[in-house]
Amino acid sequence: MALLTIKQLAEQLGLAPSTVSKALRDSYEISAETKQRVLEAARQYHFTPNPYASSLRRKNSRTIAIVVPEVEDSFFSTAINGIEFVAHSADYHVLIYLTHEDQALEESILRELSNGRVDGILISVATGSASARHLLDYNMSGKPLVFFDRVLDEVPVHKVITDDFEAGYLASKHLLENGCTHISFLSIGDGLNIMKQRFDGGAKAVREFRPGTPYHYVNCSPDPNTARILIQKLLTSANQPDGIIGAVEKLAIATYLECKSLEIRIPEDLRVLAFSNLPTASLLKPGLSTIRQPAYEIGKKAASLLFESLNKNKPPFTPKSIVVPSVLEPRASTLWKEWQDHQ
Amino acid sequence: MALLTIKQLAEQLGLAPSTVSKALRDSYEISAETKQRVLEAARQYHFTPNPYASSLRRKNSRTIAIVVPEVEDSFFSTAINGIEFVAHSADYHVLIYLTHEDQALEESILRELSNGRVDGILISVATGSASARHLLDYNMSGKPLVFFDRVLDEVPVHKVITDDFEAGYLASKHLLENGCTHISFLSIGDGLNIMKQRFDGGAKAVREFRPGTPYHYVNCSPDPNTARILIQKLLTSANQPDGIIGAVEKLAIATYLECKSLEIRIPEDLRVLAFSNLPTASLLKPGLSTIRQPAYEIGKKAASLLFESLNKNKPPFTPKSIVVPSVLEPRASTLWKEWQDHQ
Repeated sequence: MALLTIKQLAEQLGLAPSTVSKALRDSYEISAETKQRVLEAARQYHFTPNPYASSLRRKNSRTIAIVVPEVEDSFFSTAINGIEFVAHSADYHVLIYLTHEDQALEESILRELSNGRVDGILISVATGSASARHLLDYNMSGKPLVFFDRVLDEVPVHKVITDDFEAGYLASKHLLENGCTHISFLSIGDGLNIMKQRFDGGAKAVREFRPGTPYHYVNCSPDPNTARILIQKLLTSANQPDGIIGAVEKLAIATYLECKSLEIRIPEDLRVLAFSNLPTASLLKPGLSTIRQPAYEIGKKAASLLFESLNKNKPPFTPKSIVVPSVLEPRASTLWKEWQDHQ
Repeated sequence: MALLTIKQLAEQLGLAPSTVSKALRDSYEISAETKQRVLEAARQYHFTPNPYASSLRRKNSRTIAIVVPEVEDSFFSTAINGIEFVAHSADYHVLIYLTHEDQALEESILRELSNGRVDGILISVATGSASARHLLDYNMSGKPLVFFDRVLDEVPVHKVITDDFEAGYLASKHLLENGCTHISFLSIGDGLNIMKQRFDGGAKAVREFRPGTPYHYVNCSPDPNTARILIQKLLTSANQPDGIIGAVEKLAIATYLECKSLEIRIPEDLRVLAFSNLPTASLLKPGLSTIRQPAYEIGKKAASLLFESLNKNKPPFTPKSIVVPSVLEPRASTLWKEWQDHQ
């Protein structure tokens, strides 16, 4: 293949090298016709720009990374869409990395990213991320980092979160109002700040509305199959709960599946509520009561903060912490009519 | 920050530069202790390897890309997990790019990737991808490219697909066996090979089992809101169907939501079946009959073919086309007892 420089290609076309370079990275600043001309010439001469050289020249890669535990959870898939909406209007590419809730993989990804592959990172940390050192190290590199949803307080960067304590409070209060006398809080793992916040909020509601009501923290696994086994154990134990708060939607799905196989009736025998953005929540049998997080908005706000930092070309010195409230959406899984009628 | 070369860092540690380099990219070949030593020294000297220089030296980036339309569909989120399982065991990083069903964005991503950022690509094309030129161009670059699920026949590379024609045949046959006299096939867009295959398979079943039965192709949008409007129009039209095949799960969800608001009973008034890996399929009211694609297996097979090509260091000359069969899972949404009892 011919080894043409971008300068030579620009000469062939009678264009400025900067124009050719922008056209090649599909910048919105360049007209469709010009892009067409440049791409055809590039094809004709087998020209492919060296991203490494050019990114070193440009001092940026026009790419940002999203680091999330998984994409099977509708919170993350929706937040990603919010981030991409902002990134694409800023003419940036987005890379998505999955940590599968594994801190070792998260550390390896952060190292990979700490060396110029991207201009900045949006991250929601893995359940396993006990230590923040890999994030503090990345932050030291001077490149912008923004947390969303799952944050580590010790890292001094922008954060976009929801009011997890308040949401946990609402969830627990709602279950107590619907006759629950024993509530289990299903978590996907310790060490996650949001799990603690959501659980503690629930504990406050118990203290306020029915002190002494059994309220337990159950550490399930992020793995759906392991979670199902633990939930089955819980629901068949001597002191099984009559109310469940699922900290993430997959735990609510696992609970529904177990109730089905154990013939436990929702809501009569067990009221179920989950933190979830599940598009099928209203279509389940029975409809699943949820705490819905504004995932798309959280993604958009987090991305906007990242680009704010990028445009300043250095991380801000006063990290902001933006809180977007969640909403309780009661459905049939917690609304126990028979019980309410007796009140 | 000090500018230490990897060689100097290796000298400081009394290790081979190759060992240091492997440790820095977290290679499984290096012991945990050595990694720890190297990382601490790297931190101490503020050493961050230049990925561009080193990837040019290594002639590869130890990174592959997955290019998919979206991650909200459970087929793609599950296939991605299958791909990542294989990639991580091969000590590769995975980048996920979303095209949002937009060919212009897909072309821009392929250009971005055609220049050495990754060693190979796994792609499921966007609905809007009428032309294959950007993929033919990428393939010309000599880097491995593997299609999964949504393929373009004109690109001579490995493909991992499911038996879409056969699956469409099974879906339509199943609806006819459950009393449907007018079937609508809901597609997310023309131009996608798999949509045509699934629709044509259904047409064959109609010809075989009840010739002359109305069987229509309805072109819905990939956008859920637009899809709902079109489905509402369909379900309130003079010749509304009594059977629906949703080509993707989001169309089934939109159908369920519309039936709920229009008070159309499933399965009595309308039988619904969808191509879907929805984890809540059995929990919906009523349970959704599905054609389940082996998404995880398709992802694993596609990734294995990509690494096969990578290890050969050039694309194979005889592209394979692997077909993994899908499975019909009948549930309450199509099993119309009353009607069957009259048979």
